[in-house]
Amino acid sequence: MKLVPLGDRVVIKQLIAEETTKSGIVLPGQAKEKPQQAEVVAVGPGGMIDGKEVQMQVKAGDKVIYSKYAGTEVDVENEEFIIVKQSDILAVIE
Amino acid sequence: MKLVPLGDRVVIKQLIAEETTKSGIVLPGQAKEKPQQAEVVAVGPGGMIDGKEVQMQVKAGDKVIYSKYAGTEVDVENEEFIIVKQSDILAVIE
Amino acid sequence: MKLVPLGDRVVIKQLIAEETTKSGIVLPGQAKEKPQQAEVVAVGPGGMIDGKEVQMQVKAGDKVIYSKYAGTEVDVENEEFIIVKQSDILAVIE
Amino acid sequence: MKLVPLGDRVVIKQLIAEETTKSGIVLPGQAKEKPQQAEVVAVGPGGMIDGKEVQMQVKAGDKVIYSKYAGTEVDVENEEFIIVKQSDILAVIE
Amino acid sequence: MKLVPLGDRVVIKQLIAEETTKSGIVLPGQAKEKPQQAEVVAVGPGGMIDGKEVQMQVKAGDKVIYSKYAGTEVDVENEEFIIVKQSDILAVIE
Amino acid sequence: MKLVPLGDRVVIKQLIAEETTKSGIVLPGQAKEKPQQAEVVAVGPGGMIDGKEVQMQVKAGDKVIYSKYAGTEVDVENEEFIIVKQSDILAVIE
Amino acid sequence: MKLVPLGDRVVIKQLIAEETTKSGIVLPGQAKEKPQQAEVVAVGPGGMIDGKEVQMQVKAGDKVIYSKYAGTEVDVENEEFIIVKQSDILAVIE
Repeated sequence: MKLVPLGDRVVIKQLIAEETTKSGIVLPGQAKEKPQQAEVVAVGPGGMIDGKEVQMQVKAGDKVIYSKYAGTEVDVENEEFIIVKQSDILAVIE
Repeated sequence: MKLVPLGDRVVIKQLIAEETTKSGIVLPGQAKEKPQQAEVVAVGPGGMIDGKEVQMQVKAGDKVIYSKYAGTEVDVENEEFIIVKQSDILAVIE
Repeated sequence: MKLVPLGDRVVIKQLIAEETTKSGIVLPGQAKEKPQQAEVVAVGPGGMIDGKEVQMQVKAGDKVIYSKYAGTEVDVENEEFIIVKQSDILAVIE
Repeated sequence: MKLVPLGDRVVIKQLIAEETTKSGIVLPGQAKEKPQQAEVVAVGPGGMIDGKEVQMQVKAGDKVIYSKYAGTEVDVENEEFIIVKQSDILAVIE
Repeated sequence: MKLVPLGDRVVIKQLIAEETTKSGIVLPGQAKEKPQQAEVVAVGPGGMIDGKEVQMQVKAGDKVIYSKYAGTEVDVENEEFIIVKQSDILAVIE
Repeated sequence: MKLVPLGDRVVIKQLIAEETTKSGIVLPGQAKEKPQQAEVVAVGPGGMIDGKEVQMQVKAGDKVIYSKYAGTEVDVENEEFIIVKQSDILAVIE
Repeated sequence: MKLVPLGDRVVIKQLIAEETTKSGIVLPGQAKEKPQQAEVVAVGPGGMIDGKEVQMQVKAGDKVIYSKYAGTEVDVENEEFIIVKQSDILAVIE
């Protein structure tokens, strides 16, 4: 089962804090969500959205910062995803 | 009796949870609605909507995720449908 | 006395429940309004509406589903009508 | 003294109920306003309004249904008028 | 000291009631403001306003009806003026 | 240190009342702010703003009336400025 | 780890007050945030944003005034950033 976003939608999955702890020590028992940081899971085709041409600029695997409160949480087979518009993605983390 | 949506409207019907239980065990007595998951029943013709060309990208039978709170619930011959704009459909489930 | 809608307006009249009871038994004494189901009474000419070309896609006699809370109720010679924009009509019932 | 509306504005005057009583009996002592029914008194020239070409479709003398809460009431020489935009006029009564 | 409005702004000054008393009797001691009636004092140049061409259609000296609550009251050398956009002027009184 | 506004922004500084007292008597000890009257300090370059061409029509030194509640107050080196969009400037005082 | 803003977004970092104290005395122990003053850290590519061409006019290193309440605060590796749209940047401080 796979989510295929329409138009300029992007399916993202929130990042868990352990993988970015600054000190380098990994604490798997303390996994907690990192606010607004997510990994791109699937990207819509873009195209004419509400009368305006939208080109998609993120791709699956990108780590991104997204806008607080944006998007819709969906639960597919007990996994939590968020579907946002690309314009709700603020920045890519490199 | 059939619902024929106008413009970029899509008639959908909410999915019942039993058919997607992960464990594989079907529990027909516990049918409960799956939030935001629906099956497309009928699709409008698209065309010029509010001055903008809209092409329809879903078709009858598609399973979709739609935006919470979007659309209008209608009751036709004791069946519950929801009529949404295509832009309220976030993703197709494959 | 006749209502001639302007622009993309449509005059509709709410349907009464008796004519669609599923069992086939007509209960004239219990006539109650069917929410959001109406019959089209008169259709405006369409044309340039707020800077956008609108073509009318419903016609007098069509049974339609319209958007809850949309439109303006008017009383002409003790008959109740609702005047909506065509974009408030979600689907035709066939 | 005369009101000359600008742009797509229309000056209307609310109709008094006595002239449309269905039974044919005129009750001049009971004149009460008919909600949303008015007679067109003066019509603006139309033209480019907010960047969009507007053609005027009503004329002085037309009886019209207008949108509840629309428009501005003005008092000129103790006569009450309402100034609305043409788009607030829903239908002409013929 | 003079107010020169920018763009599609118009400087107006509210009319005082005495000059329009219907009976013809002038009551200078009772001067009270006439709601929404004003005299045009100065008119902006018009031109491209928010991406749209606006032509000015009122001129200094015009008596006008303006939209309730529209505009900004300003006090210049103890005289009260109101600055409105031309689109807040509903009609000219002739 | 200097504020260089972007786009259609204008940096203004509120006027102090003493310089416009009508009687001609200057009361420096009573300087109080004049609501909505300001002097232009710096003007942005204009150009394409939100998809629309904007030409700047005020210049540094102009005394202007600006819209109540518009703009953002900023404090630079203990001097108070307000940054507004040019469209929040209603009129120039000559 | 680096933030790469999308579209017309700009990553900024709030300025600390000590570096602009007027007297010239630096008080490192009292570092407090300067409201609305920030340094540009990274700038998106601009381009077609919501159907409109946007050219970026600020660059990394610029000191800017930004609009109160605008933008989204993000925390990357224990550093606080704010991501704003370029249109939320009011002025550059030179």
